[in-house]
Amino acid sequence: MAIRIQDLNANPPEDSEKKDIQSKTKKLIKQIGELQHRMYAEGKHSLLIVLQGVDGSGKDGTARRVLSKTSAAGVDVYSFKKPTQEEFAHDFLWRIHRQTPRKGYIQVFNRSHYEDILIQRVHRWIDEDHVDKRFVAINAFEDLLQFDNGTVILKFYLHLDKERQREKLQERLDNPKKQWKHNPADWDEHERWDQYMTCYEDILNRSNLPWYVVPANKEWYRNYFVAKKVYDALAGLDPKLPGLAEK
Amino acid sequence: MAIRIQDLNANPPEDSEKKDIQSKTKKLIKQIGELQHRMYAEGKHSLLIVLQGVDGSGKDGTARRVLSKTSAAGVDVYSFKKPTQEEFAHDFLWRIHRQTPRKGYIQVFNRSHYEDILIQRVHRWIDEDHVDKRFVAINAFEDLLQFDNGTVILKFYLHLDKERQREKLQERLDNPKKQWKHNPADWDEHERWDQYMTCYEDILNRSNLPWYVVPANKEWYRNYFVAKKVYDALAGLDPKLPGLAEK
Repeated sequence: MAIRIQDLNANPPEDSEKKDIQSKTKKLIKQIGELQHRMYAEGKHSLLIVLQGVDGSGKDGTARRVLSKTSAAGVDVYSFKKPTQEEFAHDFLWRIHRQTPRKGYIQVFNRSHYEDILIQRVHRWIDEDHVDKRFVAINAFEDLLQFDNGTVILKFYLHLDKERQREKLQERLDNPKKQWKHNPADWDEHERWDQYMTCYEDILNRSNLPWYVVPANKEWYRNYFVAKKVYDALAGLDPKLPGLAEK
Repeated sequence: MAIRIQDLNANPPEDSEKKDIQSKTKKLIKQIGELQHRMYAEGKHSLLIVLQGVDGSGKDGTARRVLSKTSAAGVDVYSFKKPTQEEFAHDFLWRIHRQTPRKGYIQVFNRSHYEDILIQRVHRWIDEDHVDKRFVAINAFEDLLQFDNGTVILKFYLHLDKERQREKLQERLDNPKKQWKHNPADWDEHERWDQYMTCYEDILNRSNLPWYVVPANKEWYRNYFVAKKVYDALAGLDPKLPGLAEK
């Protein structure tokens, strides 16, 4: 059944208790650190975590918190910004493909190939026929990473509501510690809220590989949600420290 | 209609005259140099030339001769060898995608992603289900380069016959100037001739984007054939030196 943006919840479930959730998150994060160490040593699987969401939805914060107990040797967070001139002179997946994780590694994409059917679509820099072709290419690309490199891909859409985004952007103006994140262009994008939501809805419905929709109004619940899924995926791979016999 | 390897001609057409062909090739190569210069200046299109063929079929020689009048600033020949440890830790297209041409450039692949469904298949390092998935991935990848970056892709299968390959490999033993190319493992692959041909036949029939089958027994005809197709493709793009008005 088709997903509708207006049906998605940006708030934590009614029955969730902040203290309780925070304590669970803490445990999960520690376990993620242990599993990542084993995965790195084993060198068999890789994990790709895709974080998408509007400005202020907490992509940076989620990556920082959820991976706070992992080793930087086997983990990388890559933030895709406006393409460079060289990147623009290639197909849209060229710069993405370079950053995919090698066996044993965790790679986080802070924004991703989905921007190429989001911001570019909202601003009508590409036409709808081109969007369709990019959807096909994205699905084939995600298949490739899975079948040919055993990469597990977790895609998270951090769902914020419009009012909460306004608050978050305002905080970046008011709080000196957050001013470095302020970008006047974010307010222009805020005005395009409905168009972004239409495009996100399309992405949630047209991806072969399903998305997790993360209620992102509250950081404590957002972090818990993502940590739980990352933990589950790593535990499912059941990585083992290789012994001498395997050398 | 399906292509059968045994129907393909490795020799020049009966009516072709060596002198005449060589003089035509010379002209084409000069024109390729001029067109490449304009293409580079214009920075609008890119050309990817894929060269496949058994050992001794003349992949190096073709690239050297056909592009002998181009500028190294906008042209690159990349020879794919046995994957490195880092390349092996990624999907098979990872190292290929990195080398695709940016707008304005000509890239030659001396061997390519097709080796991943050739040598790996002949040696049974991958199973047939995996081969099928790689075919799908390859077709999607070639689509992507075309629709998203305007890349023109020319794929050449340099067709040699078995007896001629034996002669070519023997030359590498006998001629001191060719001994640097000698590799004892090539003789082992020569013994697998029939298996390679079966795999090539499959590739010729299952690619969305068609191949040119190049009669490669005679170098003078092989070079002419490839030069003609490269010239036609570049001429079709009709690259123009941008004037001041376009700056």
